Amino acid sequence: MRDVAIIGVGMKKCGELWEKSLRDLYVESALDAIDDAGVDHIDSMYVGCMSGGLFAGQEHIGALMADYLGQTPVPATRVESACASGGAALRAGFLEVASGMSDIVLVGGVEKMTDVSGDEATYALATASDQEWEAFNGITFPGLYAMMAVAHMHKYGTTSEMLASVAVKNHANGSKNPLAQFPMKITVEDVLSSVMVADPLHILDCSPITDGGAALILCPADQAKKLAKKAGVKILGCGMASDTIAYHSRGDLTTLGAVVKAAGLAYKMSGKGPKEIQVCEVHDCFTIAEIIVSEDLGFFEKGKGGAAVKGGETAIGGKIPINTSGGLKSKGHPVGATGVAQAVEIVKQLRGECGDRQVKGARVGMTQNMGGTGASAVVHIMEVM
Amino acid sequence: MRDVAIIGVGMKKCGELWEKSLRDLYVESALDAIDDAGVDHIDSMYVGCMSGGLFAGQEHIGALMADYLGQTPVPATRVESACASGGAALRAGFLEVASGMSDIVLVGGVEKMTDVSGDEATYALATASDQEWEAFNGITFPGLYAMMAVAHMHKYGTTSEMLASVAVKNHANGSKNPLAQFPMKITVEDVLSSVMVADPLHILDCSPITDGGAALILCPADQAKKLAKKAGVKILGCGMASDTIAYHSRGDLTTLGAVVKAAGLAYKMSGKGPKEIQVCEVHDCFTIAEIIVSEDLGFFEKGKGGAAVKGGETAIGGKIPINTSGGLKSKGHPVGATGVAQAVEIVKQLRGECGDRQVKGARVGMTQNMGGTGASAVVHIMEVM
Repeated sequence: MRDVAIIGVGMKKCGELWEKSLRDLYVESALDAIDDAGVDHIDSMYVGCMSGGLFAGQEHIGALMADYLGQTPVPATRVESACASGGAALRAGFLEVASGMSDIVLVGGVEKMTDVSGDEATYALATASDQEWEAFNGITFPGLYAMMAVAHMHKYGTTSEMLASVAVKNHANGSKNPLAQFPMKITVEDVLSSVMVADPLHILDCSPITDGGAALILCPADQAKKLAKKAGVKILGCGMASDTIAYHSRGDLTTLGAVVKAAGLAYKMSGKGPKEIQVCEVHDCFTIAEIIVSEDLGFFEKGKGGAAVKGGETAIGGKIPINTSGGLKSKGHPVGATGVAQAVEIVKQLRGECGDRQVKGARVGMTQNMGGTGASAVVHIMEVM
Repeated sequence: MRDVAIIGVGMKKCGELWEKSLRDLYVESALDAIDDAGVDHIDSMYVGCMSGGLFAGQEHIGALMADYLGQTPVPATRVESACASGGAALRAGFLEVASGMSDIVLVGGVEKMTDVSGDEATYALATASDQEWEAFNGITFPGLYAMMAVAHMHKYGTTSEMLASVAVKNHANGSKNPLAQFPMKITVEDVLSSVMVADPLHILDCSPITDGGAALILCPADQAKKLAKKAGVKILGCGMASDTIAYHSRGDLTTLGAVVKAAGLAYKMSGKGPKEIQVCEVHDCFTIAEIIVSEDLGFFEKGKGGAAVKGGETAIGGKIPINTSGGLKSKGHPVGATGVAQAVEIVKQLRGECGDRQVKGARVGMTQNMGGTGASAVVHIMEVM
């Protein structure tokens, strides 16, 4: 297996971007990544996208993007794993370079979510749950994550203030990220007094509906210096795992088994452990998700994630800075792009390009992306070369 | 890059299967493939599926299938490339084994198309075309392929009888395939007197709407003998390419550039040429597609594909038997499964298991799968070990 490096990143500001289409969002970020890397061609490309069909009436998204990027006849494959589509696309691109099939591979993610009504978007997102046992009976994702929050509160004493602390931290980070959709700072009081969506989750506990794209250029690590304009970031570990798609089928409602498994695979492959991770982007689709994931990745003892974020341990300057980009909460959550956007932030952190939100001296970082209520999870560990 | 072999295949009869759900279709064929290979576990899995969202209100199809197959926590990734989703999934599984990341990989394809109305199915399929320039203006796939037929007739003198000959041959083959959706034999007169869908394509020039699934087990070629119950089939060549998604953007309307390119890559990788292919499954979504593809794969001179099929050169016993399974036309076209189903047929042919429709002595075979009007194409060349 060849070693693989990320040598270019591209991303535009997330938001409700009515003037940009699905194809614009992908192409703009891809062109930025190609320019950032300084490569003059690509050999193959991937597109992470959750539901082009339901959000934009468009499937066949790989070929579409190859066409609009002016890159035909390169192979172009779309990968879907709900909100982990971007992470799964990164893994697919990693495997293509690792195998020796291609040298320069573009991995992008995209979602255009605001051209449909709120009800239609909620329906489209609910297709990440078990259609026959969850969505069909009317439950949507805020409800599912609310149950996760209640279970964690019941078992470990996690509080609404702890949940709110995730949002407060991520908005503080996002306020320093020019790409963030909602860069305003908020307080714990703001969160607790915001509209209740699904008890105990207020609207400020939830990530937004977002249009956005993000892209990466991958190449064999031993060609990074020759090909790239900037320092390469080597992918040390790549783990992916699945769990029951229905949340009610899990043995334990307060842990995400696929996250534990995917992280275990990535740690093993990389030879690194949780203590060696210096900056991490996690999938905070709801505030409770970040708390549980921060435990399941091994950063905190089970049940202590809430106290950790409230105590500032995951802030920039803390024990393990989490979601320096603002996370899904503040930066935005264009579902198919999110896993790729996480890698964009970590690459920038490891290259020391994050300005006000830079984690000083960070050389090893991690991304954790998941789909549904954690039925898919993808974890990557990276180190600057 | 490690050599990769297919060591198990699974598939059930295609049809309008109201008693089977999306998940049933995948799981049944996957269990058959696992049983056929004789393996006791899998390390990773792929699902080719075009539009779970529009056909079944279900995305996140990788995790769904891992769950219902009882295979969590293995990594499970859905791949989409319109009607080439199955071929693209096979390529992804191939790369995972070739890279060394996993040893035993399940590659399945599935589509559940008959739970929606005909109009909804037509809309879902049209999302494989350019939504903004083709589908939005009302054109659907029979119309696009009808234009392709008219262009080929105009340039090369291809006739309606030649088109009909594709359907006649494929139904003759399908009549010998117990898995075929429409196994009845038909005549040229039947085709020409059937309802006109989009001039010059009659309904018997068109592949049907189908529920179905198909699956393969892949492993490193050097482990095939140890792992498998039957002879392994080595993947010698794997080529994929893209073209403009909109048909009107092509320079030449009578050739499919992505097919030419993908075949070129697969021939180069395999060290084989068109003359060494002994049996081939091609993407006959419409009769004209088989004629053009048979030329673009190098089996016949450009413009001679129609005469070749009319003259019996692509029948079993002819120069190059094409679509011995019955093809999409007679066997059925569950879009996301088709590329995998093609490989199921070729593996069975190369293992000598095809009974009445066996191509005698076949050792080298090919699959050609495409999406849209050929904006994606995937070609695999295989040889029995």
